[in-house]
Amino acid sequence: MFKLDARLEADTFFIHDLPLCRVLLMNDSQFPWLILVPRVDGVTEIIELSEAQQQQFLSESAQVSRLLQSQFSPDKLNVAALGNVVSQLHIHHVARYKSDIAWPKPIWGAQAVVAYPEDKAAALVDVLKKAFS
Amino acid sequence: MFKLDARLEADTFFIHDLPLCRVLLMNDSQFPWLILVPRVDGVTEIIELSEAQQQQFLSESAQVSRLLQSQFSPDKLNVAALGNVVSQLHIHHVARYKSDIAWPKPIWGAQAVVAYPEDKAAALVDVLKKAFS
Repeated sequence: MFKLDARLEADTFFIHDLPLCRVLLMNDSQFPWLILVPRVDGVTEIIELSEAQQQQFLSESAQVSRLLQSQFSPDKLNVAALGNVVSQLHIHHVARYKSDIAWPKPIWGAQAVVAYPEDKAAALVDVLKKAFS
Repeated sequence: MFKLDARLEADTFFIHDLPLCRVLLMNDSQFPWLILVPRVDGVTEIIELSEAQQQQFLSESAQVSRLLQSQFSPDKLNVAALGNVVSQLHIHHVARYKSDIAWPKPIWGAQAVVAYPEDKAAALVDVLKKAFS
């Protein structure tokens, strides 16, 4: 039975369940930032997924990457499986801009999160849910 | 005709050519750190690879991940396509330890690179070349 890590749950908004992965929006208004969490228990590395699950992850990662490009027109995508803090396998997909606060450095662990204002979060979640449906 | 980015070339040692990707060892003695560079011109995002190339990349990424685990027994793998500085598509595969200098933060842009002593670099390159052959 899949259970989302408590920290991931607290830091994100639910967007959509793809066949393999849950799609979450990170509650950080500084970056359009989606997180894919394969709904598979006890997995911390991509290579711990089965062959079929890895294929499905690749396809869903591509779908999310294209969605970030079409919705946010970033200068670059950053796609990363880190998991040094939260061990439950989760893969960051971040739309980066040359004008963003962390550019050209990675975003993780560099600057404090800035939560979305409530109305902006609701509007963005709505847009993203529609984009997946 | 594939040409490796000059900065990637300067910062790494050549290890092996897999069917799709060149495997490089980052010249930073602080982390066992391999970089996969698909030998495809003009590509900056994973989703710009063809479907077949993406499948092949997934397979080679898994191979390199398993090799890092078997050779270095890390606590965690970090796998990331960033490319904010060097735009030529390259995917980092880093063996991380709870005792390493950057843990639990990402390694990029955080601390200065510490090059391998020449003899250690040659020995490690040799071990890695053998592991791929």
